[in-house]
Amino acid sequence: MTNTIDLAVIPGDGIGPEVIAEAVKVLKKATQNEDVRLVLSEYRLGAEHWLATGETLSDGTLAELRRHDAILFGAVGAAPGDTRIPSGLIEREMLLKLRFAMDHYVNLRPSKSYAGVPSPLADPGTIDFIVVREGTEGPYVGNGGALRVGTPHEIATEVSVNTAHGVERVVRDAFRRAADRPRRKVTLVHKHNVLVHAGHLWRRTVEAIAAEYPQVSHDYLHIDAATIFMTTDPARFDVIVTDNLFGDILTDLAGAVSGGIGLAASGNLNMDRTAPSMFEPVHGSAPDIAGQQKADPTAAILSAAMLLEHVGLPAAARRIEAAVEADIAARPQFSGTRTTSQVGDAIAAGVS
Amino acid sequence: MTNTIDLAVIPGDGIGPEVIAEAVKVLKKATQNEDVRLVLSEYRLGAEHWLATGETLSDGTLAELRRHDAILFGAVGAAPGDTRIPSGLIEREMLLKLRFAMDHYVNLRPSKSYAGVPSPLADPGTIDFIVVREGTEGPYVGNGGALRVGTPHEIATEVSVNTAHGVERVVRDAFRRAADRPRRKVTLVHKHNVLVHAGHLWRRTVEAIAAEYPQVSHDYLHIDAATIFMTTDPARFDVIVTDNLFGDILTDLAGAVSGGIGLAASGNLNMDRTAPSMFEPVHGSAPDIAGQQKADPTAAILSAAMLLEHVGLPAAARRIEAAVEADIAARPQFSGTRTTSQVGDAIAAGVS
Ligand SMILES: CC(C)[C@H](C(=O)O)[C@@H](O)C(=O)O
Ligand SMILES: CC(C)[C@H](C(=O)O)[C@@H](O)C(=O)O
Repeated sequence: MTNTIDLAVIPGDGIGPEVIAEAVKVLKKATQNEDVRLVLSEYRLGAEHWLATGETLSDGTLAELRRHDAILFGAVGAAPGDTRIPSGLIEREMLLKLRFAMDHYVNLRPSKSYAGVPSPLADPGTIDFIVVREGTEGPYVGNGGALRVGTPHEIATEVSVNTAHGVERVVRDAFRRAADRPRRKVTLVHKHNVLVHAGHLWRRTVEAIAAEYPQVSHDYLHIDAATIFMTTDPARFDVIVTDNLFGDILTDLAGAVSGGIGLAASGNLNMDRTAPSMFEPVHGSAPDIAGQQKADPTAAILSAAMLLEHVGLPAAARRIEAAVEADIAARPQFSGTRTTSQVGDAIAAGVS
Repeated sequence: MTNTIDLAVIPGDGIGPEVIAEAVKVLKKATQNEDVRLVLSEYRLGAEHWLATGETLSDGTLAELRRHDAILFGAVGAAPGDTRIPSGLIEREMLLKLRFAMDHYVNLRPSKSYAGVPSPLADPGTIDFIVVREGTEGPYVGNGGALRVGTPHEIATEVSVNTAHGVERVVRDAFRRAADRPRRKVTLVHKHNVLVHAGHLWRRTVEAIAAEYPQVSHDYLHIDAATIFMTTDPARFDVIVTDNLFGDILTDLAGAVSGGIGLAASGNLNMDRTAPSMFEPVHGSAPDIAGQQKADPTAAILSAAMLLEHVGLPAAARRIEAAVEADIAARPQFSGTRTTSQVGDAIAAGVS
């Protein structure tokens, strides 16, 4: 009997289709000797699709997407200067809508140093941490509003919503992951001295879950201090757990210090498996270099590895990671001369 | 006729008193040949004072502070492990209360590279930018709340409040400052693709004020992307204008990449002069090294220079800055062997 893995693929805009093509190439190679059949269904969504059809993400498409085992996602977003598309529309009505609708409460973003990858830091040390970013609450809930818009009396609010349910499940996930790692350490990042109510919920929750994991140590950093450590001593981190907005900020910074956002993979995980999880590079659609075969597909390929791990093929995931590591080690000799698809070819060829 | 400059001095907790002693030493030296009389009144406030008296910041003290020309502030905050003090109480009821009560709407935080100061970045380039952080609104307003605390149904909210009045005055300040700088460039940092209502108010305001300053260019970065540039190309920035929370995060990061938070000065400015402005190092009270003469007083001394500039003594401010620059250039030979007061002595001696 052959298992079927039924994937939805959303290439998206800009460099999305280019990097996803390479991720699919590598996915196929990594699973060819596994006892699985890979079925891929492509969905056209994103800024271009909205311009052509007016759909951001319809209920019908959402229902179809739900039937897949997982989603591989490229990037969405119009060019910054494109005035035909209301700013942030695609990001909110499509990307964030997916994360919320599918209850992707764990936004998992690993950072690690690869030999040979230059860091902007003079001495980054050995970086090997994961950020467990909450994905369904916080300032991302869209509960803002505005009054007297465009007048001198305008007032605009944004509400961060945090629930015991939402915080507990993601903190628990962070401790569970930390317990399986050699250093077994969780760092909560927040700003509880200012954001008192949300901050206290996060802190109390960490204390409560920590009591269930006596083998895992934990500490706390304010978000401002965490950005300092991210540049002076990123090797100190093991598992970071934090809210949606602080996680957004910290993972871009983490990507930068560990060798560039071109390597940063992520998983939007529904750990209860009540809906498919979604895997995407942390980088955006980079319209300035789109269609030129200049994008680095590595983050998309590493996201595909996370996908395989999530659907129960950890050995295939490890093979992709090993191929990526070998390819990265060989990169100095190419010094940016390879096309997106040549990088994908090289990594696919390296998958044992 | 001799002018009097009447200063309130709040040394605070931890290393606050040590660094403020040096800042006062340098202030006195820098003004001795000016036609001014410096009058200093010390206020004991902070965690220690609260433990002794129960006062965070009374209406009476606030009224007294209002009568001064400016405030020199050290640092406040209890040791992280000190359970006698509710977390964040002093920060909110005293430091933030001062910023809000005195309408310190421009939180000005300059960053610059000094020759000889090591940066964690391999190649920081020439850093010379200022962050104009909004100081009286945003997520700092304390408009949060919580329901069903301690139960599985807890919900905690934090409300970011942004007004046309509050945003316009700080954006205008940023453009005014940019117009006086060689590069004449303003970068708005926000997250308008997610925080739509606040984000649009900020963007529209920047567009409107930009039209009044045709000689100043402007661009926009999401906060996550801004942290990347802060590590890969901090030299790109000239004037950054941003909200209270993003500014908090970005200025700690900026301090780190430009050679350490030990050099980062700040001014909490009421540009309408309806209340005294307040000058403080960006660093905290660092209870772990307090009382040991280990703290670097440079950030406090540079904050004192900002104070002199604000009260109308720019020449004295420049003399302090020059002395600091000369001292920093000579530092490699001391390699951390000088006490706090030796650094203050050296800088004071260098003030021409
Ligand atoms: C595109 C944007 C809405 C998104 C976010 O803020 O989460 C992105 O920055 C990310 O980190 O995945
Ligand atoms: C102590 C704290 C409340 C304060 C802030 O968040 O503004 C500090 O981090 C700062 O940057 O001055």
